[in-house]
Amino acid sequence: MSHKIAVMAGDGIGTEVMPEGIRVLEATAERFGIALDFTHFDFASCDYYLEHGRMLPEDWRETLEPFDALFYGAVGWPEKVPDHISLWGSLLQFRRVFDQYINLRPCRSMPGIRSPLAGRAPGDIDFYVVRENTEGEYSSIGGKMFEGTDREVVVQETVMTRTGVDRVLKYAFELAAKRPRRKLTSATKSNGISITMPYWDERVQAMAEGYPDVTVDKFHIDILTANFVLHPDWFDVVVGSNLFGDILSDLGPACTGTIGVAPSANINPEGRFPSLFEPVHGSAPDIAGKGIANPIGQIWSGAMMLDHLGHEDAGKAIVDAIEAVLARGDETILTPDLQGRGTTGDLGRAIAEHV
Amino acid sequence: MSHKIAVMAGDGIGTEVMPEGIRVLEATAERFGIALDFTHFDFASCDYYLEHGRMLPEDWRETLEPFDALFYGAVGWPEKVPDHISLWGSLLQFRRVFDQYINLRPCRSMPGIRSPLAGRAPGDIDFYVVRENTEGEYSSIGGKMFEGTDREVVVQETVMTRTGVDRVLKYAFELAAKRPRRKLTSATKSNGISITMPYWDERVQAMAEGYPDVTVDKFHIDILTANFVLHPDWFDVVVGSNLFGDILSDLGPACTGTIGVAPSANINPEGRFPSLFEPVHGSAPDIAGKGIANPIGQIWSGAMMLDHLGHEDAGKAIVDAIEAVLARGDETILTPDLQGRGTTGDLGRAIAEHV
Ligand SMILES: CC(C)[C@H](C(=O)O)[C@@H](O)C(=O)O
Ligand SMILES: CC(C)[C@H](C(=O)O)[C@@H](O)C(=O)O
Repeated sequence: MSHKIAVMAGDGIGTEVMPEGIRVLEATAERFGIALDFTHFDFASCDYYLEHGRMLPEDWRETLEPFDALFYGAVGWPEKVPDHISLWGSLLQFRRVFDQYINLRPCRSMPGIRSPLAGRAPGDIDFYVVRENTEGEYSSIGGKMFEGTDREVVVQETVMTRTGVDRVLKYAFELAAKRPRRKLTSATKSNGISITMPYWDERVQAMAEGYPDVTVDKFHIDILTANFVLHPDWFDVVVGSNLFGDILSDLGPACTGTIGVAPSANINPEGRFPSLFEPVHGSAPDIAGKGIANPIGQIWSGAMMLDHLGHEDAGKAIVDAIEAVLARGDETILTPDLQGRGTTGDLGRAIAEHV
Repeated sequence: MSHKIAVMAGDGIGTEVMPEGIRVLEATAERFGIALDFTHFDFASCDYYLEHGRMLPEDWRETLEPFDALFYGAVGWPEKVPDHISLWGSLLQFRRVFDQYINLRPCRSMPGIRSPLAGRAPGDIDFYVVRENTEGEYSSIGGKMFEGTDREVVVQETVMTRTGVDRVLKYAFELAAKRPRRKLTSATKSNGISITMPYWDERVQAMAEGYPDVTVDKFHIDILTANFVLHPDWFDVVVGSNLFGDILSDLGPACTGTIGVAPSANINPEGRFPSLFEPVHGSAPDIAGKGIANPIGQIWSGAMMLDHLGHEDAGKAIVDAIEAVLARGDETILTPDLQGRGTTGDLGRAIAEHV
């Protein structure tokens, strides 16, 4: 029985790192006797938009729903299509329509990757950001009044639901309960954002009652970002709203130096809809076409996809291979962002071979 | 003609650092022949709330409005009063009712203060965060429906106005135009927050036309926080909405290691209402009462107050004194957060004497 994977490379360096992601997945599938069946799509990219006037075909939902997982590159190219159009027309659609309400993002220092923080070595930083991925600050409700005049007012609503908040908190508590340190940090801003954020705090407190073994703390987002820099070793599982999770899952990898290699999983935990796996980095128009993009974010996202499909040993083999290749520190293989002079393909092949 | 200053020490370490702020202001006033007239108030603190059931007396507006400036310590003590009550009942009221629409926060590495970032020395980081301070995400519009049931929904509106956005942008552009690098960075999230943030971008673009000499760039808030850690030297003036400015003005000082000493000015530029000066740090209940709080945030805020009152030479003398005392690195004077064993008073006196 094979796993059906929909592949969307997207824009910019998405199209360059995707082949390496697939190369490593194929090598892993062979080693572990897993059947992966890839189908490639050109939609969910700005080039598709330029041709068709939309990011996705009309029947995208019926097309993608039967797949076991979606493997995505990167989307966005502001000079071709404004970001809010390209993103709301693709990635943010997938997350919402396929109810991928968990965005899971590991922040882990890796061998051979220098942290910008003084005195932090691999092993010091190892936590997960669990981000709410369907509601909150990323709403589509609101509008503009007195347009074009001095009285212009623009309103956008943040919407949180009991269902939406509780299910992401539950996932985060379950994850924390399984980890050795059993610690959960909640990102809030209830001192300033006086309606939704106190509600978030309330639900955290209610959920915490069911997990007496998990130590819970909370920080306002402003000081929390400061603590990511000052005390990244404090964190184990960090849970946040859509916006706060977005911020923390870029900042966390930046603190470990791994922003170019960080992966993410957009998960529908019940498996009613396909989950989506993509690197944290974007399409990087500035380096696109040069063959120097780091493919590790894509490859590591592939590992998270195998985990999700029930092949945790295979997923672990990929992460081990990434770490082994990084630890080797071979400048002829590492991409320029890792102080090497290798190409996207060099690094991808090295990891595939190691697997 | 003397400047009338309303003093509110607030809660926790606010009451400990305030006397040092005043000590240094008095020394400076003497040296420069400035007349400062301080009036102390016990409201805008959680203890006042516990006694009176409100953070401020009914006539607070009439009481404070005649002052030339407000000098505030820190407010909040969640075990006594929930944060959203204490803050909305005091600081956030002041900002809004006195139309202090600019929150100006310097992020500058200082001699003797170690940055948590590897290889960053004093002088490397020197920028301002200009934060919108009255509207945006800190709204009071919204509410809850289906309360207490599984269908519970909570909504809060972000409100941006042309007036509100344009005036903070104008201030930020003017500031950037006066600095040697003439660079402005706008914090946005228009790829995800699809109504208010594209509006923000639009206004930035419109305002930029009036400042052809200022180089403008923009980053989404997620990657911007990452760049604060990876490339803090990129920034000169950073402008953001109420929430984004809040985050960046904690993260910025964290990156320079100066979070305990960072100052802020809540400014009504037209002078129609008194402006308010306060340290960025909070009331820190955990170290309150020990006499070890670092008073530099309060003292530096006093320097910003003198600037605002038209005494830039006097303000500069205070900042110079802070830098000189820090550079001396005398452990018997520096507070524990600066790896010393001095008290709040030791450090305050040393700076006052230097002035
Ligand atoms: C205490 C809180 C409401 C406040 C804010 O978010 O504005 C503080 O963090 C600040 O930055 O002045
Ligand atoms: C591209 C953007 C809309 C997206 C987000 O904010 O969710 C990205 O930053 C991410 O983190 O996946």
